Amino acid sequence: MSKMYLTRREVFSASHQLWNSDLTEEQNIELFDKCANPNGHGHNFVLEVTVVGNVNDESGYVLDLKKLKTIIREEIISKVDHKHLNYDVDFLKDIIPTAENIVYVFWNILKTKIGEVNLSVIRLHETENNVIEYRGEE
Amino acid sequence: MSKMYLTRREVFSASHQLWNSDLTEEQNIELFDKCANPNGHGHNFVLEVTVVGNVNDESGYVLDLKKLKTIIREEIISKVDHKHLNYDVDFLKDIIPTAENIVYVFWNILKTKIGEVNLSVIRLHETENNVIEYRGEE
Amino acid sequence: MSKMYLTRREVFSASHQLWNSDLTEEQNIELFDKCANPNGHGHNFVLEVTVVGNVNDESGYVLDLKKLKTIIREEIISKVDHKHLNYDVDFLKDIIPTAENIVYVFWNILKTKIGEVNLSVIRLHETENNVIEYRGEE
Amino acid sequence: MSKMYLTRREVFSASHQLWNSDLTEEQNIELFDKCANPNGHGHNFVLEVTVVGNVNDESGYVLDLKKLKTIIREEIISKVDHKHLNYDVDFLKDIIPTAENIVYVFWNILKTKIGEVNLSVIRLHETENNVIEYRGEE
Amino acid sequence: MSKMYLTRREVFSASHQLWNSDLTEEQNIELFDKCANPNGHGHNFVLEVTVVGNVNDESGYVLDLKKLKTIIREEIISKVDHKHLNYDVDFLKDIIPTAENIVYVFWNILKTKIGEVNLSVIRLHETENNVIEYRGEE
Amino acid sequence: MSKMYLTRREVFSASHQLWNSDLTEEQNIELFDKCANPNGHGHNFVLEVTVVGNVNDESGYVLDLKKLKTIIREEIISKVDHKHLNYDVDFLKDIIPTAENIVYVFWNILKTKIGEVNLSVIRLHETENNVIEYRGEE
Repeated sequence: MSKMYLTRREVFSASHQLWNSDLTEEQNIELFDKCANPNGHGHNFVLEVTVVGNVNDESGYVLDLKKLKTIIREEIISKVDHKHLNYDVDFLKDIIPTAENIVYVFWNILKTKIGEVNLSVIRLHETENNVIEYRGEE
Repeated sequence: MSKMYLTRREVFSASHQLWNSDLTEEQNIELFDKCANPNGHGHNFVLEVTVVGNVNDESGYVLDLKKLKTIIREEIISKVDHKHLNYDVDFLKDIIPTAENIVYVFWNILKTKIGEVNLSVIRLHETENNVIEYRGEE
Repeated sequence: MSKMYLTRREVFSASHQLWNSDLTEEQNIELFDKCANPNGHGHNFVLEVTVVGNVNDESGYVLDLKKLKTIIREEIISKVDHKHLNYDVDFLKDIIPTAENIVYVFWNILKTKIGEVNLSVIRLHETENNVIEYRGEE
Repeated sequence: MSKMYLTRREVFSASHQLWNSDLTEEQNIELFDKCANPNGHGHNFVLEVTVVGNVNDESGYVLDLKKLKTIIREEIISKVDHKHLNYDVDFLKDIIPTAENIVYVFWNILKTKIGEVNLSVIRLHETENNVIEYRGEE
Repeated sequence: MSKMYLTRREVFSASHQLWNSDLTEEQNIELFDKCANPNGHGHNFVLEVTVVGNVNDESGYVLDLKKLKTIIREEIISKVDHKHLNYDVDFLKDIIPTAENIVYVFWNILKTKIGEVNLSVIRLHETENNVIEYRGEE
Repeated sequence: MSKMYLTRREVFSASHQLWNSDLTEEQNIELFDKCANPNGHGHNFVLEVTVVGNVNDESGYVLDLKKLKTIIREEIISKVDHKHLNYDVDFLKDIIPTAENIVYVFWNILKTKIGEVNLSVIRLHETENNVIEYRGEE
């Protein structure tokens, strides 16, 4: 039985504003610069979810990627696509929606659906030049 | 003297909402669907500006692409990057910020800086699957 | 009223074999080389459909790209994705499924759904290095 | 002496069908869905092979990437490009050609040519959204 | 008979220096800035050659893309890949190797091999953000 | 506190020649083939720098990616972009500028600016098919 890593890529278009309500306006601008713009800004976020597991002899699959696609779309993409991440998404309320914090929340949602043993890496591309990756507790 | 086409690619991250204030809420949702979300959503917009002209013998250039980059960044990117296109950008006020309308406004700004004779095409990628292109009055 | 070009990109995974049944086996191998392999081979075909039209004042759209996406998926992608183009697709029967011939058939299907006035270009990427483009009768 | 990882990327176009001959037709369709299509379907598979080793002082290379390219092309690409993976490839006979099983076979071929100590990762992109990765026995 | 456009993409890695020997050092630096660096700099140039023609009934091809690939590789890529464009390439001697001038020379070479009627566009990407395109005498 | 990996991507255009001055001309050509061309050749090198750290509660950041961008541009890109790596760059003197050796030098520069604890991976793409990666002493 061979351990393999499967990655599914999905894209969503959303807006966000980086702002810490415990800080003053000056401190927020100092900290977040143009990302603190009150009306927000947005990205085509590229999400990559990697799962790991042994290959099943009957199917030759670790996991049917169509099932992984369905989980990611139902649990994540349908909730964040064409939304404002600060206001429209229940599970992102009360956090500063940096890519780091978004990835951490996505991990906790997906681990209950996929099983934490099998969730290996979540990667979020904010732009073509900026990428955040979380591998769970290390 | 050979006529050549030069394209410069720039990226900006912005949010927008598609909404026609002459229509009812129901009509807007019917027309714009999830793009009508009141808090907006966003994209990494990819802008490609193509100019055309004859090659200059002394430089071997049609136009120094560094100059074209500077014009696009000063006139467009610095005004729209990390902004909400409905609220934060003077030259996009009073329009519905569809990709079509954005491209049309960009064309009118750039033609005064580059010269309309030399402006050939403006292309705006809203996502990796959706692209709008304007070639001026045909 | 400004004339704009809108492009929608879709991907499908299919197999095909290049073979002219009017020719001998030797002639087919001479003509199509490894593309004549009897069991076929396959590609992730990237299809780009460009439509052209005037911007509508009420919507700021030439055409809702979601509608274009739906037409392409219903009329084309659902019929060719995960298929063998020589055997499984009614509208490709009786042709040699070169990219040129595929594009021509796609054009004729889409022109009845989109309206020929508005269909501008169809582009089919067979690989990242080989692309075929049809602009209608010129 | 510094340990470095080198990756070579190659592309091949092939078709396959996912089918387990120990199962009924109904079970195969249930399990593999549209990938079970009897006439097969295809992809432009992107293969990435990563080797690891210490930098050689004389050459400044871990390994000449041209040599790695030659091994991959001779041992893998020339055998699978423009083929049907179920019927035309000796070393894929008797397996269900899922990306997982293909990667496992490629690993075993390449480890005898490159040396298992130096083979680090094999990654196979079936589409731009689906990727399988094998790191050897862990 | 349908007119189709076929594009073949090839990549080459080369260095060049932008310098006009009729100008002073100061004038060259003023004109070409960091591209005038005496020791040169380099790019992975991406070359796209588009040909146009009618589809042949027997083959379903406008032109076998393998033949176009061979012509481009023999006439262009083999002469410029891993070279310094100012010193190592006979057909680029005596010109300032801007992308504009390179494209013009490539056009003249390819038109004698492909036939000018069929050569439609040559596009040269110097970086992912800068592209030059030539369509022949217009 | 969650450990996250952040990657910043930057591009530079440079030329180099692979040559070991302790070897004869014949040995260099044997070893480096077309990369030994005396006048050099060039690439658009793509550099990816990955740092790792815990998310800061106040900012939701591991590290402000704008700061990482500034460090990479000041310490690396401004020194190597549009340069010949054998002659124009102080910190690359006296090495054979293979991708392996370049990455090693970049690591040592960046570890003093970012802190070695936080530097995780440096990846250098020489072409779209060849990539070198260094993860520090293992």
